[in-house]
Parts: sequence; C-alpha cells; structure tokens
Amino acid sequence: MPTLKDLKHNPLYIFGYISGYIDGEGCFSVSFSKRKKIKIGWETKPSLSVSQNEDRAQILYLMREIFGCGFLRRDYSDKTLKYEIRSLNDLTNKVIPFFDKYPLISKKKKEFEKFRKICFLMMNGKHLTKNGFKRITKIAFEMNPSGKRKYSLKEILKSLR
Amino acid sequence: MPTLKDLKHNPLYIFGYISGYIDGEGCFSVSFSKRKKIKIGWETKPSLSVSQNEDRAQILYLMREIFGCGFLRRDYSDKTLKYEIRSLNDLTNKVIPFFDKYPLISKKKKEFEKFRKICFLMMNGKHLTKNGFKRITKIAFEMNPSGKRKYSLKEILKSLR
Repeated sequence: MPTLKDLKHNPLYIFGYISGYIDGEGCFSVSFSKRKKIKIGWETKPSLSVSQNEDRAQILYLMREIFGCGFLRRDYSDKTLKYEIRSLNDLTNKVIPFFDKYPLISKKKKEFEKFRKICFLMMNGKHLTKNGFKRITKIAFEMNPSGKRKYSLKEILKSLR
Repeated sequence: MPTLKDLKHNPLYIFGYISGYIDGEGCFSVSFSKRKKIKIGWETKPSLSVSQNEDRAQILYLMREIFGCGFLRRDYSDKTLKYEIRSLNDLTNKVIPFFDKYPLISKKKKEFEKFRKICFLMMNGKHLTKNGFKRITKIAFEMNPSGKRKYSLKEILKSLR
C-alpha cells in the first residue's frame, strides 16, 4: 500500500486515482433527520461515503490519510468497510477544495456541485432558517434520485416548524 | 467531458483517474468456453470490463479513447453500458503496459498480476497445450473467487482432450 512518502514523488497521479475511485464508488449525499432540539425540527446531514470489501480497503485508508479527516467503520451487514466524512467543516475545508482542484469527470460532477452548494449554504447557517432549509431540501432531492430516503420531500416540508 | 486535448495539460492526473476508477469498478477476468475446433477442447478468454449507468458513462468513452481499443455495449438487463477489451493483442500491448506504468493500489493489483501472467502465457501459445492450459486454469481460478463460473475447475480439467 502506498504511503504519503510515495505521494511526494507522484501526488498528481494519486489525486487523480482518488477522484477516479470516488467517481466510481463514492456517494455524495444529504439526508434529513427529525430533531426536536432544532428549531425548524429537522437536521441536515451532508456526507461523502465510500464502501469497499475489507480485503481491498487499502484505498480507503489512503483517502483518510490524504483528506486528513473522516472515519472508517465496519458494515457488518455486508462485510464491507465504509469511509465516511460527515463533519461540515471537514467537507467544506478539505473535501470540497480537493474536488474543486481534482474534478470528477462523469456526471457525478453534477451531484458534487449540488452537494457543494448545500454545504456552503449550511456554512452560512441557511439550514436553520425555514426558507434556507426549503431551498436545501429541494437541491438535495435532485441528487441521487435512485437512493432511498426515509422521508419524502412532501413529508419533510409538511412537518416543518 | 474531457477530451484528449485536455489530457495534454494533465495526462498524469487522467491516468491516475482511470487507474482509480478501474480499481473500484473494473474487472480483470479469464473465462473458459468449450470449443470443438480447438485441439484441447477449450478456449481461454481474458478480458477487462467495466460497467456504468448510461447517464454516467463519460469515463467509459474516455477510457476507450485513451486505451485506443475495446468496445462499448449496452447491457439491456440492467440498463448499464459495458466497456470491454477482449483482444489478447490489445490486452498485452495496450492495457497491461498501462497498469504497469500506472499501478493499482488496492489488492486488485494481485488480480491484475495474475491476469498479466495468463496473457503472457497466452502470447507464448501456452493455452493451446495441455500443460500450459492446466497452468492457466489454476491461476485463473485463483482470481475473483466470488465471481460465478459456468464450469468448475474439475469439470474443465476432466474434459480436457
């Protein structure tokens, strides 16, 4: 497994490698959870996640080393290892600048751009206001249309406080 | 979608991107088919394949452009597009040198090395001799152990002419 030492020789190759890997296997998503303690009643949760079989997880460790953030956790249901970044600060300060500099090539780039927009709205506290939150949900529901969600957009907006 | 024109600025990034993408989504495999016309009764078929949803297939077109070989075909069963390289000449002259120069990082590298060994044995005609073919099947069955095969190693060796 390559280490940061190897990267000194060939960082551009490794950065391209990570972007290509995320293009295939990564998932930018924004989910919503009911939270009584939050004024509008909903928490906005952006994340970048990547799963891999445990015996091929080298690239996940490498990503954590390069991004300098996020966590690895076992998914016992399907014997995979999952690398996740959920901190808004890490997403806006480490992950988003990485993909701005080393862009995705496929249409997943559009997902990333929506994700980016939501993270920046959140950095400005928009997810805590009714109108800002509505705008965020609208963008989020345009992302990963095939992904499963616990609540529909209608349900979320209906129960907004 | 980036073109070869863009590559001139940043080839190392794009090559890394492709290796990373293949690390996640690519499959090096060697399958075997019964063939009456072949003396030993079996054909050895190496391939590199990658699938992607059609709306995110840009990277497949880019790979075909960079490797300069292979075919794209629709898989109507799951609405994906598949990029495949099956020509032994293309595999040994274009694909293998690419991954020698821009290596895989995860354990998939071991799959590639077995694949590489088989392709070179085939270039030397070993798949057409009984002993060479046996050696090849042994290596091939160590690859992608989770993949499904039509014939077991036992069945193949038993019906060897």
